[in-house]
Amino acid sequence: MLPETIHELDTPALLIDLDIMERNLTRMASYAAGHGLRLRPHTKTHKIPALGRRQLDLGAAGLTVAKVGEAEVMLSAAPHDLLVAYPTFGARKLARLVEVARHTRVSMSIDSAFVADEVSAAAARAGVNIGILVESDLGMGRVGVAPAQVAALIRHVSGLPGLEWDGIAFYPGHVKSLDATGEATLAQVAATLDELLSGLAREGFVPRVVSGGSTPTWSRSHKLAGLNEIRPGTYIFNDRNTVLAGACEWEDCAGSILTTVVSTAVPGQMIIDGGSKTFSSDRLAIGSEVSFGRLTEAPSAVFTRMNEEHGYVDLAEAERGFKVGDKARVIPNHICVCMNLHEEVYGVRGDRVETSWKVEGRGKLQ
Amino acid sequence: MLPETIHELDTPALLIDLDIMERNLTRMASYAAGHGLRLRPHTKTHKIPALGRRQLDLGAAGLTVAKVGEAEVMLSAAPHDLLVAYPTFGARKLARLVEVARHTRVSMSIDSAFVADEVSAAAARAGVNIGILVESDLGMGRVGVAPAQVAALIRHVSGLPGLEWDGIAFYPGHVKSLDATGEATLAQVAATLDELLSGLAREGFVPRVVSGGSTPTWSRSHKLAGLNEIRPGTYIFNDRNTVLAGACEWEDCAGSILTTVVSTAVPGQMIIDGGSKTFSSDRLAIGSEVSFGRLTEAPSAVFTRMNEEHGYVDLAEAERGFKVGDKARVIPNHICVCMNLHEEVYGVRGDRVETSWKVEGRGKLQ
Repeated sequence: MLPETIHELDTPALLIDLDIMERNLTRMASYAAGHGLRLRPHTKTHKIPALGRRQLDLGAAGLTVAKVGEAEVMLSAAPHDLLVAYPTFGARKLARLVEVARHTRVSMSIDSAFVADEVSAAAARAGVNIGILVESDLGMGRVGVAPAQVAALIRHVSGLPGLEWDGIAFYPGHVKSLDATGEATLAQVAATLDELLSGLAREGFVPRVVSGGSTPTWSRSHKLAGLNEIRPGTYIFNDRNTVLAGACEWEDCAGSILTTVVSTAVPGQMIIDGGSKTFSSDRLAIGSEVSFGRLTEAPSAVFTRMNEEHGYVDLAEAERGFKVGDKARVIPNHICVCMNLHEEVYGVRGDRVETSWKVEGRGKLQ
Repeated sequence: MLPETIHELDTPALLIDLDIMERNLTRMASYAAGHGLRLRPHTKTHKIPALGRRQLDLGAAGLTVAKVGEAEVMLSAAPHDLLVAYPTFGARKLARLVEVARHTRVSMSIDSAFVADEVSAAAARAGVNIGILVESDLGMGRVGVAPAQVAALIRHVSGLPGLEWDGIAFYPGHVKSLDATGEATLAQVAATLDELLSGLAREGFVPRVVSGGSTPTWSRSHKLAGLNEIRPGTYIFNDRNTVLAGACEWEDCAGSILTTVVSTAVPGQMIIDGGSKTFSSDRLAIGSEVSFGRLTEAPSAVFTRMNEEHGYVDLAEAERGFKVGDKARVIPNHICVCMNLHEEVYGVRGDRVETSWKVEGRGKLQ
């Protein structure tokens, strides 16, 4: 049975502030609508079908997932379409994916002929069509063929049964420099994208979907001419990384971990009941500071270290003292990996626990 | 249905080499027996009751857990006793813990009068007894009262209903310096422990249990006079940290992640289908090198970065080339946090998949 207030929750517990979440959702939906961009939120952040459904109700054109297991879970949000934003293959996984494709339109981003061939074979055998976005590397250096190789891969995809070429995808390269050089990097990405699209047009390829955009870069998405779809994930909750990237404020962080102080035995320090199995061991995405979260009631306390179940908080500069049994609420560095560690999370307004959700897509590694 | 060989497994998949695991288990059991030490393995590493049962069958005196949820899961291994090696309190958690204590003997390590009072109240109300180990800080700087304060806390515990004072616990401080200074640190810990035990004896306190010892320090445990129980966890599988701490060899690593190469589009690099949601983002425990695992077939490849589902491997120095679709087996930095990310893991001999286990204790945060 759900406790009435957060004070009665066992800790550590992941709390979602429902008012903030709703504000985050509507802000992004308005931005996308205002700029004529399709919004296909990446559900890797929340992994909860009810929240995917909320995103669709607010106008999302579809949902994005990273894994087949997440696609299976997210089917119950009844999306118009599902993008698997990951080159996915292997006989068992593709057998499950084509099953999903019997229930909703499925597309996938790929960057090799090998994966295109595998997906084509599985789709053709099952008698379904899978949409394909050809992924290009516009500066991230992760996946994606070089812009000059995109046309050849589109040509390959277009000749394969069971596949429909939908367009191109990229991960915004300017995510790597969200500091003073960000605008310059954005201009570079814009130039590369423009060149890519012009080159494709010359070969007769006009992509229906040009999909990019992430949470840290969301508000600059409309500056990329030709882009018509964004796939932000983290924006639903935001986190310390999002704030430090300048993409939101502290009051836009809907996700936090409620912890309890379990030891103050070592002077100047307290131990909270959350470590790497609660927060993940993700460091900050930007800069070299090593710290693992922001204590909302004592932002100058430093969450310096963790073991699996122990969080070490240095209280030298803290705004308040803590004793064993006190609660401490912490905004994590990276909310997506946190959610993946929690079986159940709690929707709250102020101190009131209003609802809870099972994180149904957590741990879906395949 | 279980595939016959690892080649048919969907990836990423966590593999446990059964021969190596068995060798690790018997090695530790022999060491403990040979030195007259009680072995109470920490099950946080595997979180699988069947493996806890195997540890008991090989002579373990009981099992250790970190959370009440893990204790509930581990009950099905039918342990003689369960140590919750974490100061645990809160009305709901303690209500569950006393329930566990109706089925087996339960003890807890604590370092404050506050937690002792809470546990006492819950135990007395339920009519059960909970054993107490008073935790002292012998150099780790995490939890544990200073040695000089141990007697006062024992006195406090001894006066409370529902509690039985069993002894003392510590986490070996010499785990922090397993390099050339390790022996010196070990000597310091030994001296502090000796002083602590002598002081307690003068006040009439003779602990039945003196519990310390972790995997990286296991083979030095018998050098700590007075220690009579060890609680290693990682030794069942070992990992990159254990090897780099000098506590085992590569061929003693039973746990690895089988991944698939999903992209080679960026020159000199490959992307494998495991990132921080598969491996955790734990860096190495020792040293400043940033890398996330060792590729068993190409140890000179460097696993340099990760996102949630992407592992970046620099192939500049690699012993072999990889193409999309190839498999790569990776020994992780820290196997305990990996296990916690996987719903199911596979017991293998060579390439043959012999069994699988559900990681029943994973995600038990409370």
